[in-house]
Amino acid sequence: MTYGKTFAALRDNTPVWPAYTRHAFVQGLGDGTLPHAAFLHYLKQDYVFLIHFSRAWALAVTKADTVAEMRLAAGTVNGLINEELALHIKICAEAGIDEETLFATQERQENLAYTRYVLDAGHSGDLLDLLAALAPCVMGYGEIGTHLAATKTSDTYADWINTYASAEYQQVCHDVGELMDGAVAQRIGNDPATSPRWASLQARFAMATQLEVGFWDMGLDP
Amino acid sequence: MTYGKTFAALRDNTPVWPAYTRHAFVQGLGDGTLPHAAFLHYLKQDYVFLIHFSRAWALAVTKADTVAEMRLAAGTVNGLINEELALHIKICAEAGIDEETLFATQERQENLAYTRYVLDAGHSGDLLDLLAALAPCVMGYGEIGTHLAATKTSDTYADWINTYASAEYQQVCHDVGELMDGAVAQRIGNDPATSPRWASLQARFAMATQLEVGFWDMGLDP
Amino acid sequence: MTYGKTFAALRDNTPVWPAYTRHAFVQGLGDGTLPHAAFLHYLKQDYVFLIHFSRAWALAVTKADTVAEMRLAAGTVNGLINEELALHIKICAEAGIDEETLFATQERQENLAYTRYVLDAGHSGDLLDLLAALAPCVMGYGEIGTHLAATKTSDTYADWINTYASAEYQQVCHDVGELMDGAVAQRIGNDPATSPRWASLQARFAMATQLEVGFWDMGLDP
Amino acid sequence: MTYGKTFAALRDNTPVWPAYTRHAFVQGLGDGTLPHAAFLHYLKQDYVFLIHFSRAWALAVTKADTVAEMRLAAGTVNGLINEELALHIKICAEAGIDEETLFATQERQENLAYTRYVLDAGHSGDLLDLLAALAPCVMGYGEIGTHLAATKTSDTYADWINTYASAEYQQVCHDVGELMDGAVAQRIGNDPATSPRWASLQARFAMATQLEVGFWDMGLDP
Repeated sequence: MTYGKTFAALRDNTPVWPAYTRHAFVQGLGDGTLPHAAFLHYLKQDYVFLIHFSRAWALAVTKADTVAEMRLAAGTVNGLINEELALHIKICAEAGIDEETLFATQERQENLAYTRYVLDAGHSGDLLDLLAALAPCVMGYGEIGTHLAATKTSDTYADWINTYASAEYQQVCHDVGELMDGAVAQRIGNDPATSPRWASLQARFAMATQLEVGFWDMGLDP
Repeated sequence: MTYGKTFAALRDNTPVWPAYTRHAFVQGLGDGTLPHAAFLHYLKQDYVFLIHFSRAWALAVTKADTVAEMRLAAGTVNGLINEELALHIKICAEAGIDEETLFATQERQENLAYTRYVLDAGHSGDLLDLLAALAPCVMGYGEIGTHLAATKTSDTYADWINTYASAEYQQVCHDVGELMDGAVAQRIGNDPATSPRWASLQARFAMATQLEVGFWDMGLDP
Repeated sequence: MTYGKTFAALRDNTPVWPAYTRHAFVQGLGDGTLPHAAFLHYLKQDYVFLIHFSRAWALAVTKADTVAEMRLAAGTVNGLINEELALHIKICAEAGIDEETLFATQERQENLAYTRYVLDAGHSGDLLDLLAALAPCVMGYGEIGTHLAATKTSDTYADWINTYASAEYQQVCHDVGELMDGAVAQRIGNDPATSPRWASLQARFAMATQLEVGFWDMGLDP
Repeated sequence: MTYGKTFAALRDNTPVWPAYTRHAFVQGLGDGTLPHAAFLHYLKQDYVFLIHFSRAWALAVTKADTVAEMRLAAGTVNGLINEELALHIKICAEAGIDEETLFATQERQENLAYTRYVLDAGHSGDLLDLLAALAPCVMGYGEIGTHLAATKTSDTYADWINTYASAEYQQVCHDVGELMDGAVAQRIGNDPATSPRWASLQARFAMATQLEVGFWDMGLDP
C-alpha cells in the first residue's frame, strides 16, 4: 500500500532513513533477540511519546484549512489516544506495569527532544511543517511493521509487529499520505520540489528521522 | 443532570446568562415563530462556528495535563466534527444547501469574534482559561435544549431541540462539567472562588456568554 | 516611500481598501469635524487594540525562520509597546484619562474580532499568514497619515496625523514591506501570485481590511 | 541583588541546581582550563539556543495579562536579540566564525531538547508555566556570573564572565524575578507553595535545570 508521493519524495532524500527503519532495535524485534527489559523500557517511554504525539496531531486539527484535513487529523488523534495507547497499556499490564506507573515514567531526553521538536514545528510553521515532522514516525512504523511481518524469525514480539503490519495501521499510513499530498497540492502546488519551501520541509523530515534513531538508541539503553 | 459545580458558580455570577439562554431566537425555536430563512442562515453560520469551535477543543487536547483530560477533549473534538456537524449538513441538505456551499459561507463578524476569542483564551492562557471560554456554548445549549423540550409549543424546530435535549448531548455537558471540576481542582484547588484567578476565569466566561448573545442577534438578522 | 511589492499586490486586489483608508472617520480627522468624544472613544479602543496587536507581532517573532525576520518583528513589538502606546497614553492623559482607565476599557466586539482574527491567522498558519493579516493596519495607517498630511484642512488632529505621516512611521511601513517581500520570496518564491497559497493570503488581507472598516465604524459610534 | 522569592523557592527545592551552576564547564571558565575548542563549540550552540530562547520570551509577550508583564517580556526579547546575540557574534567573529556560519550550526539534540521544552511549557500552559521553564537559564547565568567574577583564577574567559556578572545582566535577573513574583501573586496568590499548581511549576523548573546540565555536558563534548 502506498503512503503517497510526498512521503516517498521526502524519504528518498533522507540519507538517515535506513538507520531508523533497519536499526538494531528493529532487528531485535524481528529475530527475538531484543532483551525483554529493553522492550518494556521502550514501551514505557513510547507511552509518554504517544501522549505528546497525540497532542501534536491535535495541533494539526487546529491548523487544518479544510474539513477533510480536520476530519483526518481528528480521527488520528482518537486512534492514537483510544487504540494505540491501549496496546501499550495492555502489554505493560501483562508485564505487571499499571497505567499510573506508565504515566509517571520519567521522560528521557531523547524522547522529550523528539516530541517537543514536532510540536514546535507545528507552532512555528503551518500544517505542512507539522506534517513533515509527524510523517517519519507514522510511516516509518508502517514500513517497519510490513518489513518485520515478512522477515521475522521469531514470534517473541509478534503482537507488536502485527499491530503495525495490520491492515488498520497500513490504512492509517495511506490516509496520512493522502492528507500530506492534498495539503502539499493546496499550499505549494503539484511540483513541490521546485518550491522554496521544499528544502525546509525536507530538513524537518530529516530531523524527525534523526530523532527516531535517537529514540531507538535510547530503547537499547534502559 | 448536573453540569458540575464550576459551571454552576460561573453561570450564577454572569448577569447576561438569561439574555443568552432566553433570547428571542431561542423563544422562536420553541414556539415555531422563528422564520425559516433565519434558521437556515443560523445553521450556515453555526456550521462555520463548529469548525472553529472544534479547533478550540483540539487545542484543549494540546493543553491537557492528564490522560483523562486528553481523552475527554479528544472525544469532544470527534463528536463535534463527526456528529454535530453532520446534523447541520443533513438539515441543510434537506433545504437544498450542499456542504460545499456551507463551507463557503461568508463568516459574519459576530461569529468570527466569538470563536477567535475562544481560541485566543486557549493560546494566551492554560486549559482552565480555555474551558471557561468553551463552557457557555456547550452547557448553554444543554440548558436551552432541556428548557425547550419541556416548554415548546410547536414542533417546527423539534429536530434541533431534540438534538440538544437528548441524553447523548446531556451526557456531553455532564462530562465537560466533570472535566472542568477536575481541571479546577488540579490547578487552583477545591475553593476556586478564593483564588486570584477566579475573577479572570469569570470574566472569560462572561465574555463568551456575551458573544453568544451577539450570535443569536446575528441569527435574527440574515 | 514604497511599502513593497507584496503589499501593493494584495492591496490592489482588495476592493474594500478605499472604504478603509477613505472612511468617514478618516475624513473627520482631516477636516477636524470628527467629534472629540468619538476621537477619545477611538483612542481608548485603540489602546486595547495595540496591546493585542503587539501580542500578534510577538507571535511573529516566534514564527520567524531567519534572524533578520526575528529582529524586525522584535523591533516592531518594542516600537508598538514603548512608542505607539505612549502616544495614546499622552493624548488620553491630556484629556484626563489615566492609563489604568485606558487598560480597563471595555473592549468592543469590533475591536476584539479584529485582533483575535490576526492572532488566529498566526496560530493556524505560518509567518506569511500572520503578516497578511498584520499588514492592512500597519500600511493602511501609513497611507492614511501621508494622505491626511497632504490634504488636511484642520489642525485639530494634527498630532495624530503627524505620528503616522512621520518619517519614523513611514520607515516602519517600509521595513515591514521588506519583511513581507523577503518572507514571500523565501516561502513561495518570486512569482507569488501563481502560488496556490496566494488566494488564501489575499483572503486574509481582505478580511483584516474589512475588520479595519468595522473598527472605524465602531469609532463613530461611542 | 535578589532575584525574587519565587525563584528562590523553586531553586531551593531543585536538588540538581548545583550540578548546573557548579558544573565542570563552569569551573573551566573560572580557572581558564576550558579548552578553547569547547568554548567556541559552546558559543555556536548557544547562538542557536539564544534564537529559540528569544522565541520563547516572545511567546511570553503573547501570554502576558498586564501591560507591565508585556513590557518586561518585550524588553527581554529585544535585549536577547540585539545585545546578548551580539556578544556571541563578536567573540565568534574574533575567532574567525562569521554569523552565517553561526546560524548554520547543526543544532545538537541536547540543545534542541531544552529550547523546545521551554516553548512547549509556554504553549501547553500559561505565563507561569513558561516563566518556570525560562528562569533557570536567566537566573542561573546570573548566579554563575557573580560567582565566577568573585572566584576566577584566570582571565581567559573574563569577557564571558563579565557579561553575566555585569550590573546590566544582574538587573535583568532582578527584573525577571519581579515579573515572576508579580505573575505568581496575580495567578496563584501570595502563598504559592500551598497551591495545587506549585508541584507542576517546581517540576518544570527542575526539568529545565536538568536540561541546563545536559547543555554543559554537551559543551564539553565538541
